[in-house]
Amino acid sequence: MRAVDIIRRKRHGAELSRQELAFLVSGVLDGTIPDYQTAAFLMAVALLGMSEQETLGLTEEMLHSGSVLDLSDLPGEKVDKHSTGGVGDKTSLVIAPLAAAAGVIVPMISGRGLAHSGGTLDKLESIPGFSVRLGLSECRRVLAKAGCALIGQTDEIAPADRKLYALRDVTGTVDSVPLIVGSILSKKLAEGITGLVLDVKVGSGAFMKELNSATELGTLLASIAHRLGTRSVAIVSDMSQPLGTHVGNALEVKESVEVLRGRGPEDLRELCLLLTAYMLVFGRVAGSVQEGKEKAASMMASGAGLQKFSEIVRLQGGDPRVIEDPERLPRAAHLEDVPSPRTGYVGRIDTEAIGVAAMLLGAGRETVDAPIDPAVGLVVKRKLGEAVTAGDPLLTLHYNSPARREEAVRLASRAYHIQSEPPAKVPLVHKILGPLEGVS
Amino acid sequence: MRAVDIIRRKRHGAELSRQELAFLVSGVLDGTIPDYQTAAFLMAVALLGMSEQETLGLTEEMLHSGSVLDLSDLPGEKVDKHSTGGVGDKTSLVIAPLAAAAGVIVPMISGRGLAHSGGTLDKLESIPGFSVRLGLSECRRVLAKAGCALIGQTDEIAPADRKLYALRDVTGTVDSVPLIVGSILSKKLAEGITGLVLDVKVGSGAFMKELNSATELGTLLASIAHRLGTRSVAIVSDMSQPLGTHVGNALEVKESVEVLRGRGPEDLRELCLLLTAYMLVFGRVAGSVQEGKEKAASMMASGAGLQKFSEIVRLQGGDPRVIEDPERLPRAAHLEDVPSPRTGYVGRIDTEAIGVAAMLLGAGRETVDAPIDPAVGLVVKRKLGEAVTAGDPLLTLHYNSPARREEAVRLASRAYHIQSEPPAKVPLVHKILGPLEGVS
Repeated sequence: MRAVDIIRRKRHGAELSRQELAFLVSGVLDGTIPDYQTAAFLMAVALLGMSEQETLGLTEEMLHSGSVLDLSDLPGEKVDKHSTGGVGDKTSLVIAPLAAAAGVIVPMISGRGLAHSGGTLDKLESIPGFSVRLGLSECRRVLAKAGCALIGQTDEIAPADRKLYALRDVTGTVDSVPLIVGSILSKKLAEGITGLVLDVKVGSGAFMKELNSATELGTLLASIAHRLGTRSVAIVSDMSQPLGTHVGNALEVKESVEVLRGRGPEDLRELCLLLTAYMLVFGRVAGSVQEGKEKAASMMASGAGLQKFSEIVRLQGGDPRVIEDPERLPRAAHLEDVPSPRTGYVGRIDTEAIGVAAMLLGAGRETVDAPIDPAVGLVVKRKLGEAVTAGDPLLTLHYNSPARREEAVRLASRAYHIQSEPPAKVPLVHKILGPLEGVS
Repeated sequence: MRAVDIIRRKRHGAELSRQELAFLVSGVLDGTIPDYQTAAFLMAVALLGMSEQETLGLTEEMLHSGSVLDLSDLPGEKVDKHSTGGVGDKTSLVIAPLAAAAGVIVPMISGRGLAHSGGTLDKLESIPGFSVRLGLSECRRVLAKAGCALIGQTDEIAPADRKLYALRDVTGTVDSVPLIVGSILSKKLAEGITGLVLDVKVGSGAFMKELNSATELGTLLASIAHRLGTRSVAIVSDMSQPLGTHVGNALEVKESVEVLRGRGPEDLRELCLLLTAYMLVFGRVAGSVQEGKEKAASMMASGAGLQKFSEIVRLQGGDPRVIEDPERLPRAAHLEDVPSPRTGYVGRIDTEAIGVAAMLLGAGRETVDAPIDPAVGLVVKRKLGEAVTAGDPLLTLHYNSPARREEAVRLASRAYHIQSEPPAKVPLVHKILGPLEGVS
């Protein structure tokens, strides 16, 4: 078998066999296939797509390029959630403790933020002392104690994805549905989970701006996960505005603590309850989504979720006092309101621009190895459909260095489109997809 | 400007600007753009194509990646011919001397054979002592003396093409019309020519099997060459059977000498007269294609063409006695007829298989650095439409090593489709295309 023949077959529209995909993935991993052939293959996939069978094969080969956690010694179902990423999307910090408090094992491996989108690891690291760099054995210890561990990717997990992703990043082939599916699921299914809730974001702050492409991605993600033996559902949720109000690492931890207390913005709280509900159903501690939601809400009301978060923080080396008192989290030196230029209603928000504005203040990374400032970010004061008077704050910037403040102000200000009529209401959840959408 | 942004724009269907193409070509040349980005770009072009404007820009940037010969000190027009390659296609050996004998300057830079197709350089090297490795200054000396030089590519000519071609070869992106156009014309126009006759082969022995793709390629080649200041025409000629009868290096030199004497197979002779006619028109030594044909025929009849060939051979270090007496060329030790399995008419020939059979005997290369045997090859005994009786020879193999003889016999034998009715006659020239097809 030769890589060039496989690439040529793909280019001319053939469906690749499992053997061919296995040859490619193992060649990428051991370096026998040079990067230029891999790059040509990735571009062919990005332009021609893949059949569901090919995507399944690619995903499974990538999954088995590394270790798959065996958590069978821990009693109960292992369930995780994955989000395709957005602005202010801190649901992981809420739902992992909630689900664990309800008795589900949550072995959550997360990523870092890049460009306009935040990352769970960066948020967690704003908690003084918190370590996301647990090896798999340490991760297992925390899981056994708390029922949840929140860690970063390790070298053992899906190494083929790391190589492929690095090449996709520099060859303009990141936004390809089958490649995204392979990348997400090869990492998530390596956690040894039996259920996976997929939060597919759609809208101006998501990678998928259109409902049809988000639907395509969600359907395929849920289907492939299911075919690989993991119960799954894809919830297509709205990202046409920041989720909740806080954007930035410590700011999002603070807001997550609010939600764990049953408070905080309604959209964020509702989405957290829905995602947790599915986790509880997959975890077999709730018989229906409705029961799952009620159970999740009771974990908020009783404080069990917050206590679980505190326990995880402590076990992973963090200072649990910040959970009781989020004022102990890093705070920015300067606050500045961005006023509305006119009176009217918030009709549309360029959410990606909001994310970039937070990045410019230091909350995110322009390049993969850039440092971030845990304290900075912004707080949204007006959400879609809300009335605003000229001069009222649309959002408040939290910053330390004035270096790119001006640029951030301009971006954030332009991101809001104020109109004279109230816009149509946007649903929080657009679609629920997948073989197990009807588990209730 | 960043390569990844250009690749992404191309991927999403944008037309690249001249500045972007210049950035890519210079980055490929100086190594600042890594091979994996170039490979992704090539695959995007292979799948999405290029506009004529993009193809023009790519070609011109590739052309100016190296030296362009300045032959302005030599009086008269400089004209060349390029063929897209086939089996038994030895027209260069005939028409270059004919055109030079008629007063046209022919600075012909050719290539080697690969896979089923032969290469002019390999054919010339079957002449004892003949050197195709002249530097540009030596080439200029031969040109000044004989009006024609037949050489191989040098490092100074279109170096970007060498890098791009090497990558295309291993990424399944060879057969892309804009990439083929850039590759051919960047090398040919670097010869400092004012006219170019393009022989675009179509049929079972050509890279383009279908008339519409050959037409697309020919039209674009002629148009881009013309827009870059070179008078041009594309002749779409038939390759549904070997051209002439001889396939193999010394065998083709021998047949070329026959044609230069005004003899040899009619199809080969007719095509040589037509190609030469256009060269004479572009060379301004004939006022019409008809006059060009007559002049070319008179160069055969007078022996001036053969004498010119002999002169070129001598100037390039070869033994001119083989031109007078082709029996002095290397000859194979063994001859073997391949008989027809049945009685009927030759209805169809898998010409690529004939080329591969010759390669297996040692006349061509499976890989770029494989050695070849100048003496071996095959001679076609029956062409399309001819009647044949069971047991009559379809072709004769000329070989030295029996190593792959059996495989060659099987391939050559299966390449002939004998049917009971005579097939429709196939034209030798399918189309004449380009801004200057009507120069007559």
